[in-house]
Amino acid sequence: MADAFRCTRQVEFNDTDMAGIAHFTAFFRWMEEAETAFLRTRGLTVLGVWQGEKVSLPRVSVACDFANPVRFGDVVTIQVVVEKIGRTSLSYVFEFTKDEQPIARGRITAVFCQNVAGEGLKAREIPAAMRELLQGS
Amino acid sequence: MADAFRCTRQVEFNDTDMAGIAHFTAFFRWMEEAETAFLRTRGLTVLGVWQGEKVSLPRVSVACDFANPVRFGDVVTIQVVVEKIGRTSLSYVFEFTKDEQPIARGRITAVFCQNVAGEGLKAREIPAAMRELLQGS
Amino acid sequence: MADAFRCTRQVEFNDTDMAGIAHFTAFFRWMEEAETAFLRTRGLTVLGVWQGEKVSLPRVSVACDFANPVRFGDVVTIQVVVEKIGRTSLSYVFEFTKDEQPIARGRITAVFCQNVAGEGLKAREIPAAMRELLQGS
Amino acid sequence: MADAFRCTRQVEFNDTDMAGIAHFTAFFRWMEEAETAFLRTRGLTVLGVWQGEKVSLPRVSVACDFANPVRFGDVVTIQVVVEKIGRTSLSYVFEFTKDEQPIARGRITAVFCQNVAGEGLKAREIPAAMRELLQGS
Repeated sequence: MADAFRCTRQVEFNDTDMAGIAHFTAFFRWMEEAETAFLRTRGLTVLGVWQGEKVSLPRVSVACDFANPVRFGDVVTIQVVVEKIGRTSLSYVFEFTKDEQPIARGRITAVFCQNVAGEGLKAREIPAAMRELLQGS
Repeated sequence: MADAFRCTRQVEFNDTDMAGIAHFTAFFRWMEEAETAFLRTRGLTVLGVWQGEKVSLPRVSVACDFANPVRFGDVVTIQVVVEKIGRTSLSYVFEFTKDEQPIARGRITAVFCQNVAGEGLKAREIPAAMRELLQGS
Repeated sequence: MADAFRCTRQVEFNDTDMAGIAHFTAFFRWMEEAETAFLRTRGLTVLGVWQGEKVSLPRVSVACDFANPVRFGDVVTIQVVVEKIGRTSLSYVFEFTKDEQPIARGRITAVFCQNVAGEGLKAREIPAAMRELLQGS
Repeated sequence: MADAFRCTRQVEFNDTDMAGIAHFTAFFRWMEEAETAFLRTRGLTVLGVWQGEKVSLPRVSVACDFANPVRFGDVVTIQVVVEKIGRTSLSYVFEFTKDEQPIARGRITAVFCQNVAGEGLKAREIPAAMRELLQGS
C-alpha cells in the first residue's frame, strides 16, 4: 500500500453541539471530505466521469470509534490509508489526531459502481488502472 | 390566499450548537421541510414529476429574522403562508412560534422551473392549475 | 430486553445528495433522533438532568451498514433495540426498513457520564433505576 | 471600512442535493465559516473569551440571494465586508463568486452579547477596541 495521505480540518462553529464538542456526525463528513481530497490526488473521484464512464463509490459500511472530543477552533489531522482493495469493494481507514493525540478512528467501505443507462448502479470489478492509482504504485 | 398550513418540529440534539440553542441553519431546513409538507397537501412537489413534466422550485432568495432561541426538546410550530405568486416565482412566509411566543420569521422565494433535456433548468410561467392549488381555492 | 421501539422518518430534500439518494450521514442523524424518542418514552434523556444530576450519553462507537438506498419522500421505519447494557456503557441496534424491505442497520455505543463541576464528564456506573427503565421492565 | 477579507471553499459531496447542486443551506454554513476566519484575522471570535469576558455574536437576521448554482468540486471565493457597525449590532455582506462569476450574495446581522452569570445573554455596546479591530484600522 502507498504512503498515507494527510489533510487537516478546523472544527467549525456549525460542527458543534450543545455538549460543546464536535457532533459525531461531523466526523463522517470529514472522512468523506478527506476521501475526496485523497482520490483527487490520485486522479480519481467519488462520483463523476472516469475514463469516459459514469462511476461512483456508494458506501456499504461506515464506522467510527471516538477516543477524545474536539472543540470549536481545534485543528484535526486526518490520515487516509487504503486498507483493502477487494474485487469490487474498497476500504479506507481514517485516523483523526490533534497535536498527535488520538481523537477518532473511522472506516468507510465503498463499492465501485458504474451507472448503466436504464439499469441504475451496477457493482463492477475495480479496473487494474484504478487499483494502481489507489495503491499509489 | 388560502388558510395557513401548520406543522410542528421538535428540536433535535443535532440541531443544537455549542451556544446551547438550535443553530440558525436549522431554521432553513425546517422551512424547506414545512414547504415540502405544505406542497404535498396541495398535490405539488418541490422537485419531481408534475403533470408528466420534470419540475422544480429552486430558491432565488431566502431570509430569516430571529426573535427568540429554541433548545433541545422544544417543539416549534411552523406556519406556512403563500405570500405572493408572480409570473414565474413564488414566495412563502414562515412564522415560527413556541407556545404562541414568536421565535423566528422566514421567507423563501423560489422560481418554477422545468427541466428541459439538453438545456437544464428553464424558468417557466406558473400554470393556472398550479396557481389554483397553491391558493387552495 | 423490552419490546422494540419503532418510529418513522420521511426522507427530506435536504437529506439527499447529488447521487439522488439520502446521504449516508442522514442515517446517523436519524439514529440519534430515534434514540432520543426512545429515551423519552422511558423517562430518560441523551443529555440533561436526570434525578437531579447533569448526565449525558456521549458516543464512543457508531456504525452503519447499508443494504438499499432511500429517496426524497420515502418513509423509513426505524426500530430501536437496546442490545447490551454494560457497567457504564449502553449499545443500541437500529434497523431501518421501508415497506418491510431492509434499508440499513446501525449501532451506537454510548457511555453514561455525569458532568462533575470542575472535572468535566466522568463515566459512571449505570444506576439500577436507569437500567430498569432501559430494559422496560 | 477596511479592505475586504477573502477565503475559498470547495463544494463537498455532502453539500450537494438531488438537484445536483450545492443545497442552499450550505451557503449559510460557508458564511459563518468565512465570518469565523475573518474574525480570527482580527483577533476576535464568534463565541469565546475576549478580553476576559464570555462574549458571543448571536444572529438576529440572515439572508441570501442566489444568482448561479455551484456543483461538487467547484471552488467558490467568499468575500467578507463589514457593512455596518451599530451600537450593539454588526452586519456583514458576503459575496460568493466562482471564476469571477457571481454565485450568491448573503448578509448576516449579529448582536454583540455578553454571557452574564445567572442572566444569560445580554446585548452590549460594541467596545471601541472591538470596533477598531472590525474596521481594520
